[in-house]
Amino acid sequence: MARKPARIIEKERARKASAAETLWLFGLHAVRDALANPARQKLRLVVTRNAADRLAEDIAATDLAPEIADPRSFPAPLDPGSVHQGAALEVRALDWGRLEDIALSDGEGPPRLVLLDRVSDPHNVGAILRSAEVFGARAVVAPSRHSAPETGALAKTASGALERQPYLRVPNLGNAIETLKGMGFLVIGLDGEGPVEITEAAEQVRGRPAALVLGAEGPGLRARTRELCDILARIPSAGAFGSLNVSNAAAVSLYALRTE
Amino acid sequence: MARKPARIIEKERARKASAAETLWLFGLHAVRDALANPARQKLRLVVTRNAADRLAEDIAATDLAPEIADPRSFPAPLDPGSVHQGAALEVRALDWGRLEDIALSDGEGPPRLVLLDRVSDPHNVGAILRSAEVFGARAVVAPSRHSAPETGALAKTASGALERQPYLRVPNLGNAIETLKGMGFLVIGLDGEGPVEITEAAEQVRGRPAALVLGAEGPGLRARTRELCDILARIPSAGAFGSLNVSNAAAVSLYALRTE
Repeated sequence: MARKPARIIEKERARKASAAETLWLFGLHAVRDALANPARQKLRLVVTRNAADRLAEDIAATDLAPEIADPRSFPAPLDPGSVHQGAALEVRALDWGRLEDIALSDGEGPPRLVLLDRVSDPHNVGAILRSAEVFGARAVVAPSRHSAPETGALAKTASGALERQPYLRVPNLGNAIETLKGMGFLVIGLDGEGPVEITEAAEQVRGRPAALVLGAEGPGLRARTRELCDILARIPSAGAFGSLNVSNAAAVSLYALRTE
Repeated sequence: MARKPARIIEKERARKASAAETLWLFGLHAVRDALANPARQKLRLVVTRNAADRLAEDIAATDLAPEIADPRSFPAPLDPGSVHQGAALEVRALDWGRLEDIALSDGEGPPRLVLLDRVSDPHNVGAILRSAEVFGARAVVAPSRHSAPETGALAKTASGALERQPYLRVPNLGNAIETLKGMGFLVIGLDGEGPVEITEAAEQVRGRPAALVLGAEGPGLRARTRELCDILARIPSAGAFGSLNVSNAAAVSLYALRTE
């Protein structure tokens, strides 16, 4: 048998590692939403007696055997300071399938996507998942590396949206942008120096599939990302100082591009 | 001399306590912005040698004598985990004056205000200050109690906006709303069940002074706050599930009400 090229071996290794990866969700809200999600692979549920009572219906609907824990020695491996409210659930990351499929999945109006260029703060990504869900974006897409991974902290700030809103990790964001352009998406990069305002960019993509790309605060979009965008747009600002938090910039842009 | 009523004594005591209150700002960005703000009363600057070099120009422009600290035993009383980058500055809270004055201060277009009904998370309030600055709101107003106080963590998430964007604490939010209505402000409460969409509410207040009121996630607006609003507006949602993070809801509403 011919030897596999190193690139292929590396890819297979990454796929296996990711399949083996588990994470702990915590907090009553996040655990309840995950219990109710049939697509979510659930491995271990650790709950206090009190939390077990509050989640009783949701637990009964699964075939999980909850492990009842003493609140004073809660055994789930959570970061210190995690507000777990007596509930922790070990799960596998969700598999949302291929970008090409999810980008054109059913939904109201022409598809909208949010692409994140190295946004690593889980609070921002969690808030962006919520906004993406509210404004009907088909998916939030981020590179596998240098992005906030699916974690309990992300799930908590996503307030349920992590279970419902596709969050896709891709090997290379630039390649993903090229794939989307090949499918007919217009790509709008958010940039404080962009030549058009977001309202004008929204006019230009009206009725067409569109992806919004946002960079990390400070560095902004990387050079290749910026070059691949069809439109660079700015959010209008009243003064010379200040800038929006990245999740707020995403929410405003999604609202500007709403399709109703 | 007649005895002062208990209410007056209580008020005077609160005023004295608040004047005595100091806070520690930390992080190069927040400390630099505060050093550059002439309105900010600065008490003590603790910096590592490295941070002192990086802030040299800003320090030279003040009459502060920096205390050079060893990075391994940084002496400023910060919360553990505070990313201080070797710089901490003890300051007094800013005094933005009276609501009546700041609400009608100079600026482009009819005045906009953001009122927060018990939003206690400093990350959300920090992000809202940034959005308020970008969209030219005259002030962010919150009740003295049950709101995020001006702290180092708030300053850090506000990313400079705390130095420039008025953040007013008032004894009673309902009374503040009544004051604003008496001054001609129309008051829009954000409410998921509101009968009009935010775009329609924006039409209704076009060219007029307007205040947006947002409640905490979960409880939303309190009963009296809701009753005092002229308009209850919702942000349109694509589906039955999900909701915006409060800072994202504020950003979208401010964008919808922009006056250019």
